Amino acid sequence: MEGDRIEEATLANSPVDEISHLALDIGGSLIKMVYFSTEKDKPQKDGRFLNGRLYFLKFETSKINECLDFISSKQLRCRGIQHCGFPASDKNIIKATGGGAFKFADLFKEKLDISLDKVEEMSSLVSGANFLLKAVPSEAFTYVNGQRNYVKIDHNDLYPYLLVNIGSGVSMIKVDGDGKYERVSGTSVGGGTFWGLGKLLTKCKSFDDLLEMSHQGNNRVIDMLVGDIYGGMDYLKIGLSSTAIASSFGKAISENKELEEYKPEDVARSLLRMISNNIGQIAYLNALRFGLKKIFFGGFFIRGHAYTMDTISVAVDFWSKGEAKAMFLRHEGFLGAVGAFMNYKLVEEFPNSNSLVGDLTDNGIIECRVHVSS
Amino acid sequence: MEGDRIEEATLANSPVDEISHLALDIGGSLIKMVYFSTEKDKPQKDGRFLNGRLYFLKFETSKINECLDFISSKQLRCRGIQHCGFPASDKNIIKATGGGAFKFADLFKEKLDISLDKVEEMSSLVSGANFLLKAVPSEAFTYVNGQRNYVKIDHNDLYPYLLVNIGSGVSMIKVDGDGKYERVSGTSVGGGTFWGLGKLLTKCKSFDDLLEMSHQGNNRVIDMLVGDIYGGMDYLKIGLSSTAIASSFGKAISENKELEEYKPEDVARSLLRMISNNIGQIAYLNALRFGLKKIFFGGFFIRGHAYTMDTISVAVDFWSKGEAKAMFLRHEGFLGAVGAFMNYKLVEEFPNSNSLVGDLTDNGIIECRVHVSS
Repeated sequence: MEGDRIEEATLANSPVDEISHLALDIGGSLIKMVYFSTEKDKPQKDGRFLNGRLYFLKFETSKINECLDFISSKQLRCRGIQHCGFPASDKNIIKATGGGAFKFADLFKEKLDISLDKVEEMSSLVSGANFLLKAVPSEAFTYVNGQRNYVKIDHNDLYPYLLVNIGSGVSMIKVDGDGKYERVSGTSVGGGTFWGLGKLLTKCKSFDDLLEMSHQGNNRVIDMLVGDIYGGMDYLKIGLSSTAIASSFGKAISENKELEEYKPEDVARSLLRMISNNIGQIAYLNALRFGLKKIFFGGFFIRGHAYTMDTISVAVDFWSKGEAKAMFLRHEGFLGAVGAFMNYKLVEEFPNSNSLVGDLTDNGIIECRVHVSS
Repeated sequence: MEGDRIEEATLANSPVDEISHLALDIGGSLIKMVYFSTEKDKPQKDGRFLNGRLYFLKFETSKINECLDFISSKQLRCRGIQHCGFPASDKNIIKATGGGAFKFADLFKEKLDISLDKVEEMSSLVSGANFLLKAVPSEAFTYVNGQRNYVKIDHNDLYPYLLVNIGSGVSMIKVDGDGKYERVSGTSVGGGTFWGLGKLLTKCKSFDDLLEMSHQGNNRVIDMLVGDIYGGMDYLKIGLSSTAIASSFGKAISENKELEEYKPEDVARSLLRMISNNIGQIAYLNALRFGLKKIFFGGFFIRGHAYTMDTISVAVDFWSKGEAKAMFLRHEGFLGAVGAFMNYKLVEEFPNSNSLVGDLTDNGIIECRVHVSS
């Protein structure tokens, strides 16, 4: 899956010494990290600006020590900052968002002598999404019939939109402009539900393992379809075909099978379908409520996974009768972290915007230039 | 639970010989039956009318033979009808709704020589709900702080309302009057999901077993709460307290526990909370969409279960900020079956409406009088 390459590439390629500013989004399940780094051995200074790149990395929140070790090993606090001439005031401060910015503040202070400068979660998601949508070409795309179609964002016609961030839980935010937003809804049935319930049901080893299983599975084995109830017939009067899911997991009622007798792949598939469809439906109902035609889906649940995007797209299309459009984001999981990074107010412009497309396809790295003194 | 007494009482008390008209709602998981019967040994004939009672009974769809045996043993087709003087044309016909009216039509014909006269499902739900709301005192009630508060229905101010029928799947119907309705939404996350997924997760023996378990459980063991993410703090800016569920089943991700290490009671509780809350939210969003203040919840998922009703009530209240009201129905599971029965067009009036309250508390039996000739 492409989504994963974003992190793998950065772990291998990250230039060790030149990391300066770093921002975190510490969620219930995952820690998302964004950091700025110049190219190894040749930081390109240009007056008050420094050319470099934004890198993306993630850790499991339950393994937060790996994140602390990473930050510590990169000696972010000392070498990087001194090297590049950032103001000393930034030295022991990291911009951080998500609930973990509160929960783990003492831990960062104690272990690394770093203070977490808390950035409000919804505000981070919104400023991250706005930055990515405006600055990065090919950030947003629709997913129809297995095909990504990149969407050209018109800066003058971006707002209003609905931002649906699918992390452990789901937040739905109506965005009316830079810094103008309202969290209008949400649901507790999100990525944490897929992973948590999936782990209990399939004994999967990881989120990716579970996603991969779902790819191999068939939801019709466990879901009760309209045709199962109607004896193979459609229920056309209310627009439900015989293959529509009448009841997620409903077939498990009447079959005398224990959990172990179902293929974990089929279970994973039903679960993914149930959750993706539910999020798509609630998102659509909220978009309808405020007359929003554009719905951007972000968060680490999606992972560029074809079936997830397809289910969400179909749900939005089905419920809205084609009126609303589901769009996805290349940096889906990093909206909050990017938003926290934006809070440093370092990023000025994007010099090589046309060259970004190639980079993105590989690993999501974003070229940018930052202020070195304020 | 009171809900169950409705069926238990009828099995024991049902007068054998005098059953005449009977209607079925054959769903994906359950068969709901309503039948009219006069009092044993003394059918009270009154000109063209016959006084009697409506009885309620249910079977599992996967054990449909029990339903066939019941009908056969009661010799509905012959004695009952001849005895009471119903027209011969009704003899081999049963009004039936739900998908099973299609799926099992051949089975009824073959085994009992009975034709199922199909009544459209949504139409049945609506006419059943309208009949019950108008004819039965104390049919509808709110559930607040563990307290049932019966709602007096003003016949002139009943419409419009949203009917949410939670069967295996969920249908949401905007009702504007007798025979005036539209299915506006639904979700596949319904009673079949609770039962099916619950069976896989807890090895429960029955739906009631699962409900009973949920009563003993604590959802905080498995659900990821806002406080779990925010280090015990509320996230007040968006109105979420530390005890709000951020991610259903989200805690299962980080704990190194297998399914067997969780108490099935806690799993059942989280599942019930997730599904009830989700239905409440989607119902509210649809009520909002059409400006409906009254939401009636029916279907066999609820079963008069305190925690289910409480979760749905709180969800509707939370999301609507107190604007919309969740109401429940005494004959919740039998809306479709009652609607199919209404399709016989036998029921004229309700002679002892004031005496019904007592009966209802006991077993849900409804007194009524029917035409004996048309």
